[in-house]
Order: sequence, then structure tokens, then C-alpha cells
Amino acid sequence: MSDNTDVADWWRTSIIDMEPGRIALRGHPVEDLIGNRGFAQMIWLMVTGKEISGQRARLFEAALVAAVDHGPQAPSIAAARMATTCGIGLQSAMATGLNMLGDVHGGAGEQAVDLFRAIEAAGLEELKATLDRWRTQNGRFIPGFGHRFHKPVDPRAPRLLGLVDEAAASGEVIGSFAKIGRAIEAHLADERGKPVPMNIDGATAVIYAELGCPAPLARGFFGLSRSVGILAHAWEQREQGGRNKGPTPPQYRWTFDGA
Amino acid sequence: MSDNTDVADWWRTSIIDMEPGRIALRGHPVEDLIGNRGFAQMIWLMVTGKEISGQRARLFEAALVAAVDHGPQAPSIAAARMATTCGIGLQSAMATGLNMLGDVHGGAGEQAVDLFRAIEAAGLEELKATLDRWRTQNGRFIPGFGHRFHKPVDPRAPRLLGLVDEAAASGEVIGSFAKIGRAIEAHLADERGKPVPMNIDGATAVIYAELGCPAPLARGFFGLSRSVGILAHAWEQREQGGRNKGPTPPQYRWTFDGA
Amino acid sequence: MSDNTDVADWWRTSIIDMEPGRIALRGHPVEDLIGNRGFAQMIWLMVTGKEISGQRARLFEAALVAAVDHGPQAPSIAAARMATTCGIGLQSAMATGLNMLGDVHGGAGEQAVDLFRAIEAAGLEELKATLDRWRTQNGRFIPGFGHRFHKPVDPRAPRLLGLVDEAAASGEVIGSFAKIGRAIEAHLADERGKPVPMNIDGATAVIYAELGCPAPLARGFFGLSRSVGILAHAWEQREQGGRNKGPTPPQYRWTFDGA
Amino acid sequence: MSDNTDVADWWRTSIIDMEPGRIALRGHPVEDLIGNRGFAQMIWLMVTGKEISGQRARLFEAALVAAVDHGPQAPSIAAARMATTCGIGLQSAMATGLNMLGDVHGGAGEQAVDLFRAIEAAGLEELKATLDRWRTQNGRFIPGFGHRFHKPVDPRAPRLLGLVDEAAASGEVIGSFAKIGRAIEAHLADERGKPVPMNIDGATAVIYAELGCPAPLARGFFGLSRSVGILAHAWEQREQGGRNKGPTPPQYRWTFDGA
Repeated sequence: MSDNTDVADWWRTSIIDMEPGRIALRGHPVEDLIGNRGFAQMIWLMVTGKEISGQRARLFEAALVAAVDHGPQAPSIAAARMATTCGIGLQSAMATGLNMLGDVHGGAGEQAVDLFRAIEAAGLEELKATLDRWRTQNGRFIPGFGHRFHKPVDPRAPRLLGLVDEAAASGEVIGSFAKIGRAIEAHLADERGKPVPMNIDGATAVIYAELGCPAPLARGFFGLSRSVGILAHAWEQREQGGRNKGPTPPQYRWTFDGA
Repeated sequence: MSDNTDVADWWRTSIIDMEPGRIALRGHPVEDLIGNRGFAQMIWLMVTGKEISGQRARLFEAALVAAVDHGPQAPSIAAARMATTCGIGLQSAMATGLNMLGDVHGGAGEQAVDLFRAIEAAGLEELKATLDRWRTQNGRFIPGFGHRFHKPVDPRAPRLLGLVDEAAASGEVIGSFAKIGRAIEAHLADERGKPVPMNIDGATAVIYAELGCPAPLARGFFGLSRSVGILAHAWEQREQGGRNKGPTPPQYRWTFDGA
Repeated sequence: MSDNTDVADWWRTSIIDMEPGRIALRGHPVEDLIGNRGFAQMIWLMVTGKEISGQRARLFEAALVAAVDHGPQAPSIAAARMATTCGIGLQSAMATGLNMLGDVHGGAGEQAVDLFRAIEAAGLEELKATLDRWRTQNGRFIPGFGHRFHKPVDPRAPRLLGLVDEAAASGEVIGSFAKIGRAIEAHLADERGKPVPMNIDGATAVIYAELGCPAPLARGFFGLSRSVGILAHAWEQREQGGRNKGPTPPQYRWTFDGA
Repeated sequence: MSDNTDVADWWRTSIIDMEPGRIALRGHPVEDLIGNRGFAQMIWLMVTGKEISGQRARLFEAALVAAVDHGPQAPSIAAARMATTCGIGLQSAMATGLNMLGDVHGGAGEQAVDLFRAIEAAGLEELKATLDRWRTQNGRFIPGFGHRFHKPVDPRAPRLLGLVDEAAASGEVIGSFAKIGRAIEAHLADERGKPVPMNIDGATAVIYAELGCPAPLARGFFGLSRSVGILAHAWEQREQGGRNKGPTPPQYRWTFDGA
């Protein structure tokens, strides 16, 4: 592009620069990146423009690994399996599953990062006040805690927090957001008289906040992660066969509410 | 599920097994995988059910890294940028870009794996005959070679082939498909009297064939890889702003062909 | 555009011509069409470039009306309902349902039109030979006949065929494809010793063939039609509420096939 | 379903009731609707559960006709054309275009209905105060008025308003929202010292408000309407050919902003 004076300014990007025979991604010749960056490192570089390594890279990789799948009951996974039986292409089946992610399914990570940053800004001593203000604005549901399926504990969360502790011990992250996450967990347990443990959205949000990631990217990264399970299930369904599979077994139609 | 006698047989999977408080992915407790598998290793395990490590993992990671982006002129990238300016969610913008991948955009990798396996089955000495038969069935276009933009060489291909050579030298892959790819390249150059170098689809197809990957998964993996560029561009466009951006600058409308 | 010498030739269309303050669709000022064409007439005009009226328009309208819905067991409908509970926008929920339509779900209409035209070309007296040749190329499944749910009869088909008979009686269509459809139905009943009645895909294909519609447009029109049910169900689900609804009731998880 | 005591309550609907051989839509046997309802009447019945006829049906049909297309510069149309050249199915190409509709592209109709109802509730004499309060909450942009392309007038709006006048003259609608729309138009012209005419979103919003339609359905109906142009353009592009067409002509790459 540097030698093309006929450039339209309609799309502008700092991500990629290309000429015939040359591709640079975030300033690096692509052939220098291939074989020298792991896929997670490449994701971070492409999306944020910065390098990631060491314990920080390990945390990012863990967050991506943790969220890949939650079974065919998750709408994102189910849609991809159903789509496969409808005879659309594998990538369209993946896109169909990914399109399911929105405010309710796949959105809690972003909300949790926002909440954690609000608590950090106000100070831990103001935890109760910040949570109450959050509820007033956003509803009673605290993103990142509790789980309608995993009781008593979402098995992914303690493991992810443990990795944050290791990274904090090494000095590569501060650990302030792990502290905030645990404080919310304790506070909610007090409030409700029973555990309300951190879930996958809360634990990955701790990691994304520790890594300085803007809150909406928590959703984008969840999307990349869940795309792995979406592909795995779409491929498995394709191998299994089945034509035009609806959501439920045939004997379970639906309830007719009309006259 | 083992204690639930009320299981419907409508969806069956070997990928994930869950109960409240327990998630196993491909037989491994999820907390054992988090922090102990790289994201690329996790992708391979989820999709194929097998582990990948060493030079084979390095090749897989390289294939994923190499295909992440080809600029806002690629329909998959452009659609995500346009979608972002239309005010849909980040994950829906990603899905919109991913949905662009089909037979023509993102399909050549699968076709190239099929071709390479056909050549391997018939033997390299039958290369010309196999290529001619391919053309008869599939059209004159040989998937994986040549490029309408990158002349004289797609910079990603030689680097990827070099990594295959390294892996073959270590004994972790055989290298037969790299040999096949180079043979096709030489043959096409003879035929046309000018280079027709391997492109990203051919080079990643060499890797997927070396790794024993079923051909359609070349498309699935390309989809995961391109999703990274899709997310990066959607995020960048979101930060840049812009409302309702169509594909071309306003002075470029379209040509009206009617009366 | 006629006075704009700076037009790029990248997109060319005969469908719409615009300047500030002026929109012409298929050559007609838009304000002349608004209020003077029914929605179905507008669809035909926009897609084919031709006008439709009288009995032909009545048939087209009937085909669009007939296919709007087949209940939440249909993947297209289910996906839109699930998507709504995931918190994505109404139009994205519609798109998610529409994306389910492919070769298996929503593809039979196109295949049936192709078959009917093949039978017309070869002549009715060659019906058996043409059907046998079809099966050799396409598999044993004859598109447009039989139904895995509606037995003994898909209630939409006889009504649609009756409307074709009325249009043929008026002289506005020939009726040859209705004759072909009934001949196939009789032939299949002979073959299998039990009725294999025409279904919605076969009946709408009779109409699209009578109207001279290219076969792939049968799919496009099915998509428009089904979009109506998709919107209705998405809207109803939105009013009902529900968060993150997967495909099956919670007690119906899935069968784990792994070790 | 009435004789099936084994019904799961997971999906509930008043829209469709089915048994083998019987389909009822909103309480009507489907074969009674086919041939006896126009497509627009069917849309209204399916989505709202109520019948529509006479001048009210004419208005609804006009709103659907008016919004079908705005050329390949509209992201919804462009995406469908690009998708077609990428080799995905016709219905997936339609879904890709439809997925572009969101808050910014295809959202103004809903916002305008909300605004018109707010003005009606407060009374026309409070117009200025209501508009000012709207701006405080929603930003300076008044949905439904002005147009970045169509100056001085969006040709669809006066025609649609004229049809509302005709329906009001017949007594089938009240005409209060046409009055509100014109009042806003006059007020904005006073404010800015130049015309800010009603556009397609404002004019269709007048109609949807007159018909008692919930505001979000304005978006759903816009989606159905625009799906027509999306199909038309996807089909035309398919007939034209073209492979892997990005958004801009090749000489217009993009501007590289990085180092």
C-alpha cells in the first residue's frame, strides 16, 4: 500500500499491511510469526496489537481453553449440531452456533469485567455499596457468580483462580482482580447464607481484567473459545449423520397454548 | 449422566460428559486440561479426540496462525467490519464474517487435502494422470496453487513448508505430502511455463494431510483461524466508529444495468 | 447514476437505480409501486423483474402462505426461539433461523422443480425411466413426496394443487406440472403398495414450475415464506421470556458415548 | 397434541397446532388460509394473532413494499451479494444479509415508534418538551427524520403518508400518528432552519403506530421487507457470477494506519 497512491480511505486498519508477495500483521512479516508464536499469542497480538508471553500468556491460554464447551444443552452448541443435520456447510454451521452468543448467552464475561473494574475503582472497602449500585442499574443478577447447573462449584473456576495465584506469585500479574473476585464470593455467601461460587464467566473475567483487556473483548474471546466446541460438535454430528434434527425427540412436541 | 436414568437419546456425544460440579472433555477432567494444554492442543483434542504434541503440534499451531487474516478486501473480514458499524453485537459480527466462508472463500483447503490424498493413493509417478482426472471432475482450477493477489509468491507458503521439513527431519511426520505439494508445484510450472506457487490453502493442506486430518476439517480449522482476524477487525472497527458503512466509499455507487 | 461519470463497475444491478430523492425499482418509481402492488407481487417483481397478476399471482401468494411454519420442532423455528432467549436482537434471531435452511431443511423444493422439469422434458410416458435415472444420480429419496410426520396426507398439498387446477381452468397456467406431480404420486403408490402423497415441497414446486420460476428460486421463496414463521415464533418467545434456553428440557441431557 | 399426555412443556406456542395430517395456524386450518389470505395478511395474522383487512391491510402491505431495497451500498444488500460470490447457499446468503440489521441499520423504525407513542402520551402540545427529553436520553439524532442520501426528500415517505391520509379518510385508522409525524417534521424544520423531512423509517413507523403494532415489531417487519431485496440481489449476483468478491474494487485496498 505504501506505493499505491490510489488508496481509498474507506477502510483503515493497523492490523494488516499487504502488497503482492508481502503480508505484515501488526508490523511483523507473517513468515516471522508462523512457527514463532503460539495460536493464543497470535490471537492476543492480532486483537490488541501487543505481545503476550510468560505467565500472562499462560493465563490467556487457560481462559480460552476453559470455555470451549458446555454440552449440547448450550444453545451455541445445539444450534451447530442442528444446523449440521440441515445440510449447510461446516463453516455456516459454526457461524450459526456463534450467532447464538449475545447478552444472555456469552455476555456475562463482559459484564463481570465491568463490575470488577467498578469495584477496583471504588476500592474494596466500598464493595457492598458498589454491588448495591450495580444491582440498581443492572438487575439483581451479579454476573460471574452462581450457576444454574454446577452446584456446588463450577469446576473450572477454582482451577483458573489457582493459575492467577501462580502468576501473581511470579510477579507477572498483580492479583488485585483475583482478590476482588474472592471478596465478592465471600460477600454473596454472607448475603444469601449459602455459597454463590464464582463461575466460568467470573473466573475468565478475573483473568481478562488482570491482563488489562477491555471488557467487550471478554465476549469476543469467549466467542473464539466457544467456537472450538462448536466445531467439535458440528463435526461429530456430521459423522453421526441424522437429517433435519429438531431440538427435541419427536415424542416431545410442544404445548399448544391457543384456543 | 451416569446416575440419570431419564436420559433422552436425541443428542449423543463423546466430546463432553457433565454432571453438576463435574465436566470431562474427551475423558479428561476440565481442570486437568486448563493450564496443561495450549489452546491449539485443546482444539485438536476437542475436535479429533486425540492428543497432539511436539513437532506435530507446532505444525498445527503454524497452520492456525498463518490463515488468520487477509485484510478488509476478504469478504469474511469486510463483512465483520460492516456488521460492526450496523450496531449488532460483537459475537454476531464475528458470526456474520464466519458465515461468508463456503465453497469459494475458505473451501480450497478441503479440496487440496482431497487432491493430495488422491495423488498419494495413486502414487507420485501417476501425478499427471491424477491431476488430469481431477480437472475432468472438478474444473481446471487446482486448489492450493497460484494466487490472484500474491505474485510471485504467497509469503506464508514457503515458511509453512519449511516447518514441515523440520518436522520431517525430526521424524515426527513423514513428509510425503510436502513432497507431493512440491511435485504439483513443479508440474504446474512446466505446464504453464511460469511459476504457479503453492498458496496458503495448499500449504495448510500439506500440514493437515501430514497430520492425518480428514479433509473437511481443513475447512473447520480455517474457520477457527480466520475467526481471529474477524474478531480483530470487528474490534478495531468498533473502536474507530462509523455508522452503517456499506462496502464502498459513497462516490462509488453501483452501475445500473436496467432500462 | 446516469450523470455520475465516477461510477465503479464493481457492483452492477438491474434491480434498483437511485439518486438523491429518486428510487426506481425494476424501472418503476418506488412511489408508484407503494400502494399499487401487493407484497407478493412486489416480491415477484423484485426477484424476477417481471410483473405477476391474476391467477398466477394467487398461486404465488398461496405458495408463500403455505410454507410459513411447521412448529418449534423445525430447526429453523427452534433456532430462532433459542436465539431469542440468548439475548440477541430480533433480526439476528431471524437470521439465525433462516441460516438453518440448506440442502436438507428447505432444499427439497428446488430439487423437486428440477425433477418435474426433467420429467416434462422427457415426456410423461418416460416417467418411470426418468425417476429411475433420478434415483441413480441423487439417491432413493424422491423430493416432494411422502412426509415423516404428516400421514396419511400433508394437508397443505391437496389445497395447493386445487388452486393450480382453478388457475389452469382459467387458462392462466397450463397445468402440465400438476399433471406431472399427480403422475409421480400415482407411480410411487404403485411401487410401494401404499400412498406416498405429495408434500409441501412437491406442491409448491408444482406452483413454481407452473410459474416458470428457476429451480433455485424455489429455495429463496421458501426462505422468505419460512421467515414469517421464524419472526412470529421469535416474537412470541420474546414475550414469553426465558433465558438461555437450550434445545431440550433440563432433565433430557444427552447420552455420553465416550469411555 | 391434545391426545398426547407425554408433552414436554419446554416450548409453548399459540401460533401453530399440529398432528399428523392436520396443521392449524392461529386457530385456522392451514388449508382454509391458503388461497384466502394474501401474504401480507398472513404475516400479520401469524405475528400478531389478529386478522387485518381493508385499508389497514393496504397500509401494512405498503410499509412492507416500501422498504425492500436500498441498493448494494446498504450493508444488508452488499453482504448478501458478497456472500453469494463466496459459494454459500442462497438461504445462507440471505441470512448473512439479514444478520446485518441491528440497532444502526434497521433499528430506527422501532425507535421512531417509541418516540411517536411518547409524543402521543404526553400530548402534541408538549412536542418540544418530549423531543428534548428524548434527546437527553437517546442522543441528538431523532429517528425517522432526515436522510444522509435522499435530499431534499426520501421519495417513499410522502407516498406512505398519503396512504395513511386515505385510510384515515375512510375511518379505518385514526390518523393521529400521521399528525404527530408531520408535527415533528415542522418542528425540526423550524429548529434547524431547513427541511428535515420524514424518511422511510419515520413513515413506516407512522403506519406501524397507526396499526397498534408493538415497537420492536417494526424491526421484525423491516427485516421481512428487506429480505426481499436481499433475495433479489443475491439471486442476481448468482446469475452474474463472480468469485470471492470483496467489498471494493481491487485497486481500492485499504489505508494502513500502523507503523
